[in-house]
Amino acid sequence: MSERWVYFFGNGEADGSRHDKDLLGGKGANLAEMVRVGVPVPPGFTITTDASRHYMAERSFPPGLEEQSRAALTRIEEGTARTFGGGDDPLLLSVRSGAAVSMPGMMDTILNLGLNDATVEALARGADDARFAWDSYRRFVQMYGNVVLGVPNAAFEELLRERRDARGVEDDTGLTADDLRALVPEYKEMIAERTGVTFPEEPEEQLWGAVRAVFDSWDNDRAVAYRRHEGIPDDFGTAVTVMAMVYGNMGETSGTGVAFTRDPSTGEKRFFGEFLLNAQGEDVVSGIRTPVSISQMADLLPDAYADLLDIQERLERHYRDMQDLEFTVERGRLYLLQTRSGKRAAAAALRIAAEMVDEGLIDTTEAVLRIDPEDLERQLHSALDPNADPTVLATGLPASPGAASGRVVFDPDEAVRRSEAGEAVIMVRAETSPDDFAGMAAARAIVTARGGMTSHAAVVARGMGKPCVVGARDLEIAREGRSFKAAGHTVAAGDWVTIDGASGRLLLGRVPTVEPELTEHFHRVMGWADDARRLGVRANADTPEDARQARAFGAEGIGLCRTEHMFHGDDRVRAVREMILADDGESRRRALERILPMQREDFEGIFQAMDGYPVTIRLLDPPLHEFLPHDGEEMDELAWATGRRVEEIRAAVERHRESNPMLGHRGVRLAISVPEIAEMQAQAIFEAAVAAAADGVDVQPEIMVPLVATVEELRVQDRLIRDVATRVFEEAGREVPYMVGTMIELPRAALTADRIAEVAEFFSFGTNDLTQTTFGISRDDAASFLPRYIEQGILQDDPFQVLDREGVGQLVTLGTRKGRSTRSDLKVGICGEHGGEPSSVEFCHHAGLDYVSCSPFRVPVARLAAARAALEEAGNAEEAEEDGVDPGTPAEPSLESVA
Amino acid sequence: MSERWVYFFGNGEADGSRHDKDLLGGKGANLAEMVRVGVPVPPGFTITTDASRHYMAERSFPPGLEEQSRAALTRIEEGTARTFGGGDDPLLLSVRSGAAVSMPGMMDTILNLGLNDATVEALARGADDARFAWDSYRRFVQMYGNVVLGVPNAAFEELLRERRDARGVEDDTGLTADDLRALVPEYKEMIAERTGVTFPEEPEEQLWGAVRAVFDSWDNDRAVAYRRHEGIPDDFGTAVTVMAMVYGNMGETSGTGVAFTRDPSTGEKRFFGEFLLNAQGEDVVSGIRTPVSISQMADLLPDAYADLLDIQERLERHYRDMQDLEFTVERGRLYLLQTRSGKRAAAAALRIAAEMVDEGLIDTTEAVLRIDPEDLERQLHSALDPNADPTVLATGLPASPGAASGRVVFDPDEAVRRSEAGEAVIMVRAETSPDDFAGMAAARAIVTARGGMTSHAAVVARGMGKPCVVGARDLEIAREGRSFKAAGHTVAAGDWVTIDGASGRLLLGRVPTVEPELTEHFHRVMGWADDARRLGVRANADTPEDARQARAFGAEGIGLCRTEHMFHGDDRVRAVREMILADDGESRRRALERILPMQREDFEGIFQAMDGYPVTIRLLDPPLHEFLPHDGEEMDELAWATGRRVEEIRAAVERHRESNPMLGHRGVRLAISVPEIAEMQAQAIFEAAVAAAADGVDVQPEIMVPLVATVEELRVQDRLIRDVATRVFEEAGREVPYMVGTMIELPRAALTADRIAEVAEFFSFGTNDLTQTTFGISRDDAASFLPRYIEQGILQDDPFQVLDREGVGQLVTLGTRKGRSTRSDLKVGICGEHGGEPSSVEFCHHAGLDYVSCSPFRVPVARLAAARAALEEAGNAEEAEEDGVDPGTPAEPSLESVA
Repeated sequence: MSERWVYFFGNGEADGSRHDKDLLGGKGANLAEMVRVGVPVPPGFTITTDASRHYMAERSFPPGLEEQSRAALTRIEEGTARTFGGGDDPLLLSVRSGAAVSMPGMMDTILNLGLNDATVEALARGADDARFAWDSYRRFVQMYGNVVLGVPNAAFEELLRERRDARGVEDDTGLTADDLRALVPEYKEMIAERTGVTFPEEPEEQLWGAVRAVFDSWDNDRAVAYRRHEGIPDDFGTAVTVMAMVYGNMGETSGTGVAFTRDPSTGEKRFFGEFLLNAQGEDVVSGIRTPVSISQMADLLPDAYADLLDIQERLERHYRDMQDLEFTVERGRLYLLQTRSGKRAAAAALRIAAEMVDEGLIDTTEAVLRIDPEDLERQLHSALDPNADPTVLATGLPASPGAASGRVVFDPDEAVRRSEAGEAVIMVRAETSPDDFAGMAAARAIVTARGGMTSHAAVVARGMGKPCVVGARDLEIAREGRSFKAAGHTVAAGDWVTIDGASGRLLLGRVPTVEPELTEHFHRVMGWADDARRLGVRANADTPEDARQARAFGAEGIGLCRTEHMFHGDDRVRAVREMILADDGESRRRALERILPMQREDFEGIFQAMDGYPVTIRLLDPPLHEFLPHDGEEMDELAWATGRRVEEIRAAVERHRESNPMLGHRGVRLAISVPEIAEMQAQAIFEAAVAAAADGVDVQPEIMVPLVATVEELRVQDRLIRDVATRVFEEAGREVPYMVGTMIELPRAALTADRIAEVAEFFSFGTNDLTQTTFGISRDDAASFLPRYIEQGILQDDPFQVLDREGVGQLVTLGTRKGRSTRSDLKVGICGEHGGEPSSVEFCHHAGLDYVSCSPFRVPVARLAAARAALEEAGNAEEAEEDGVDPGTPAEPSLESVA
Repeated sequence: MSERWVYFFGNGEADGSRHDKDLLGGKGANLAEMVRVGVPVPPGFTITTDASRHYMAERSFPPGLEEQSRAALTRIEEGTARTFGGGDDPLLLSVRSGAAVSMPGMMDTILNLGLNDATVEALARGADDARFAWDSYRRFVQMYGNVVLGVPNAAFEELLRERRDARGVEDDTGLTADDLRALVPEYKEMIAERTGVTFPEEPEEQLWGAVRAVFDSWDNDRAVAYRRHEGIPDDFGTAVTVMAMVYGNMGETSGTGVAFTRDPSTGEKRFFGEFLLNAQGEDVVSGIRTPVSISQMADLLPDAYADLLDIQERLERHYRDMQDLEFTVERGRLYLLQTRSGKRAAAAALRIAAEMVDEGLIDTTEAVLRIDPEDLERQLHSALDPNADPTVLATGLPASPGAASGRVVFDPDEAVRRSEAGEAVIMVRAETSPDDFAGMAAARAIVTARGGMTSHAAVVARGMGKPCVVGARDLEIAREGRSFKAAGHTVAAGDWVTIDGASGRLLLGRVPTVEPELTEHFHRVMGWADDARRLGVRANADTPEDARQARAFGAEGIGLCRTEHMFHGDDRVRAVREMILADDGESRRRALERILPMQREDFEGIFQAMDGYPVTIRLLDPPLHEFLPHDGEEMDELAWATGRRVEEIRAAVERHRESNPMLGHRGVRLAISVPEIAEMQAQAIFEAAVAAAADGVDVQPEIMVPLVATVEELRVQDRLIRDVATRVFEEAGREVPYMVGTMIELPRAALTADRIAEVAEFFSFGTNDLTQTTFGISRDDAASFLPRYIEQGILQDDPFQVLDREGVGQLVTLGTRKGRSTRSDLKVGICGEHGGEPSSVEFCHHAGLDYVSCSPFRVPVARLAAARAALEEAGNAEEAEEDGVDPGTPAEPSLESVA
């Protein structure tokens, strides 16, 4: 006996069920399931993905497929009381692809299969509509000619256009049944001329051609590209579902619609959808007619509506999730054509999950698994008003979400001035540098023409939770920097623009935005997530305000407090520059003493905001040249202020210039060359900690040395920091507990982590720099080739967004293992951009890290991702998956299969 | 019974031998050995390094040391018939340090110990020279006061100066015995005032003070710094040798000298050295008197000379190596004071090794182990005439050895012009870029003010075998670039200068140089090395000339043929720039077609030069901006030549600008963005290979893809290269064998080497870039902090010179293992700068690599280092070491211990 390739469903029985998704595809499995639970579905059968794999390997149908299909066909004929390819009431079929993983619109579908010169007449009679029958036939020939025989659609459209011209009408609705009847032989002749193949009249021949074409469509270019992009294996293959056609356009007792069991925008528990009387799915899609609200169906087709209401409730209870339904009513009789988990807005997802727990449909574990962490962040930011219809000036990379409007400024000082005057400003720059920090802090949002997702602007904006678009390459900033051109508009400084950080768009004028709200549902679901997760979640925050924001979002400490911005600002940078220009340690120390009180104040504010939680402070990381002036005017000013010759200043700037600053004189290297800086910082930290402790704050400073490559570097710094601590504690007569640790952000640090852990009390993987060095890719320069890599499938993801498990991840795992081999209680975290990206958080969970740290606005994302990782590890994921929920890739709602 | 801390030697017997170097230090072990073989040595004893370690740990002498020393002292008294601290013929002692590893001049020595107010009189009588006795006493008090009691020498010199002034004499020889006698109490009084310690009169107290001081000197600053630099463990400790003083200044039957058993400059087998009648070693060192050739000793002291001739021959045969001897004749009686393996010039080392094999003294294995690979390279380059006394303008890093004179040029075009006119030119630049290639090729030598050992200038110059000094920071090049200032001189374009690449010096004017010679001895020793080694040795060579040179030096193929210089040169760079500016693939291809024939010709020449050997060709690696013009004039020219607007050119230059070019759009990334370049290069390679094969050349091209981070990148390139090969072979009607492989120069490539080996047929570790990325250090920027790291002992070596085994080496080992786990016959080599550095070559041997590849001039170094690694692995090293040869750290010849 041959293998089973065909699974029948209909007539009250089904061979398959919802558990056969891998074998029957999502569509086929759910159709079978609906039959099993007594939902009316047109009968049909599904050819398995195994058959598809056999076909791909052998280029022929597996033995037994045709016989099994014929037997199933007979059962459809029995169920519908129609005959395939003949009789007064001919059975027509739809043939659709359906993979285990949703690949919306990627593969082919053929409708109305079974029509030929004989059956078309029977259809016309049955529907009592010759035009409908001939239009169906004409469309079938075109669809089949295109999909199965490979004739371009344009060739059909050409003949259609000629016909319209001959009739003198503007669109196809002007063509009569006779016009369409005349088109069919013209189509067939054209197909024969182009392909040398006669159009098959025999319905069974049509069927096998269609099945073959669906199998083949698995390997068409767009499907391959889509799979590459989504990481779907090439050997999954697609199932093929063959189903009796039903028609919603058979008069005033027929109709078609799409519905959701709850409101997909708000999550409210109410039946929601659209309906069209006497229409086909295509009519809804093409927009020729406007559908009405589903509730109006109650008046139009009361019996069918009552059935539908009952069915939707049963399906939701059965699947224990909000369903997206497609249905057709043919002459008063309701047929469900599809059900699947419905795609929903983030707010809706939270409400649905929380309310389903209350309704006893799901438990809290499942509620947590139902939320896509990536969706969550959108919840926290303002967004464009969905009713707005803005003019797009330029599109770049969506570097930091949120929407904001403001007046364009190009100059950071102007940004500060205007902002202090109470104006909303948007900063527009070719790219940003640390010099621009004050301007960025003053602006509502930031746009740059250059740079990638991890460029300076992107990282800083995300840290601040400000909307940001980077790499908007079409934006031409005028040389003198007082205007820019984009999409044919010239926008001057002071003009209004709006940023949509979520979509990466720069919009003309003031576009209305809607503000976010942290709902009760959000807090409930996040509470369940916190109960489930093992990983700690901290925030990257550099100021007391950010620290408070992070804490409000649930951060359990600060994993990265960068100190470099504390060197910026007019009052500070002057002292920093004097320090750099100083000729000896003594003058350096004097200059640094002026920065000390300001740093101390910064740290004290942060300790207060994080009372009871650890605060990891990274010592100065960037190279000194970032603090030096870059243009002539600023050099003149500095020369005047310091009483030095401009040539001296210029020489210093030149001396500090570097070929590859990313790999240059920064981090611990700087601290070893100019120990006075680290000394001052350590002093500021300990003095702030002692002062806060005196106010009753529970302070837990963790001092982090950046860019360590060898244990010896860390040893030198560790000694310096501990000496300062001893001195400060003695002077204050008070001690606070503290730790000294290091970033692991260079491959060598990970490779020698066992040595480094001899000194380090904690590790924090700086996966931004670790990714840069492991790949040898500068994130600032990656925009010129990385997008192509992802397009071509050379990389699945941008490694600066999603942690590269194979390479960088290997170093994280190795570094953690080696570190703990020396010091078993080593605290290990991650503070790169990846700390807030769900797949990377999942990796960190499995790598055994203690915590992740991310931008404040990503904290809830990380909390949820950490919970999912823990729950999935505990085996809950599989169960949820089998219940028809695939939380990672929500299904696209579509009408393509409603006929 | 307590441990044995004291080893006696003298009176015809010795407790230790040459095998006790670790315990007795090199000096003590060899003195014992000389006594064992019947060589006359003043009796003495050695306190062991164990005692030193005990002292360092406990800050006290080990129990039993003093008793054992006293017993040994008694035996010295017996042997010399003198009494320590008294009698008519008082025994005086020298106390010297002596570690297992030579640390020349790092620790302290005390002579004439045992003198006091009583014994000085006896000495005066015995020597019949009161001035000598009082001068010895005065010197002893000073030496002891300084070394043991810590009084600065200047304080003694001050009193001495006052005494000279009082006598109205210019130097110390003008002082009489009475003057010196008067000085002694002045010295003692000053010591008492400064230290509160009375100068010890008691000889035994003097002895313990001296021993303690020698122990302490192990931890003085310069000794610690030296050990850090040389990688000598701190816990080795030093032995102390206490020996009876003998005097070469006891009249016309006394004398002192230093000799070598063979000529240390040429290696010629003749007794060689210097002698002074009636003198102390100090007299030779201070240069007060000029010694005569050792052969004249035959006339002056014929009996002692005959003894010496006999002894030197016995010692050489006994040690089976050329010896460096120190001796004293006291009243006609010869005493050997030291013997050790003599330091020798590289040429001499080769000759001595080869001739000792002929003489049956050593076997070929030992001959190979006797040659220091680092010394070898000097053999191959011209050098400064040792008799020259040049004016040093500036000192930088010795980037590429050899000496050359020429006229200063600042401009690469001028270098080409003058060179073509037959002038010798030296190129002087702030730093070099690939634009300067033609100028560098035309120059005799290169000097830069900036950059490190692996900067562009250094790498290119080494590749070309041209002398080069980089990072000569004191060199101030005038703005207009027509002169430079250094060391107070202004040197204009056209002035003569000389470069000494071996010492990193820039010298004023034409300094005479001597040319190298590849001797018969060189070829013989290298032949033995080749028999012994397992590692293959290839060269990095980019031109047919370099390839021929490399082959002459013994290269067995090319491990790295860089193709980027093939894009430079006036005729080519124009086409390259047009290619970069081209808007589409077609125009790019047209521009590249003009470069194709030139590249093909280059490759054909290289294949011919390497007939029968593999040639690894790396596809274009640098970012395109390196080929674009950088100044306004050049941009104008390019605009004019291409008919584009200057703004367009400027915009293109701006568009290609990168923040971190090292981590930017280069290597395989470029090949994926602009596949036309790789296509053209592959075509040129295969066409050249087919053409050379048609001429009967055995070609073995290996095409190498640079900067691969993921196997997918390589897969794309592999497909492209193989497609081109198929096309070229079809067109030519001839195939050649070839391989496609990759550089492993990014941590991710090493970490995922198992995946990469699915495609790569060979790996070549690019340890320059691998070191940069593993450490996160840009070699171009490292000069600002790396020297400090080495000074402070944070790093033992510059990792760009000596492969970092702990970090980078871990990746090399891992990558090799993973690569071979996928493809067991994977060919693995290394082509970074490390391929020619002995310790790195040794590492490559142990890591199981197939070959190393290095600059042509380093090929002999690598061959020898590879042989040494193989022989040492086979256990020969230990044996050689025990024979008193420490080929890695040749002993410094010195006279400091001849009294």
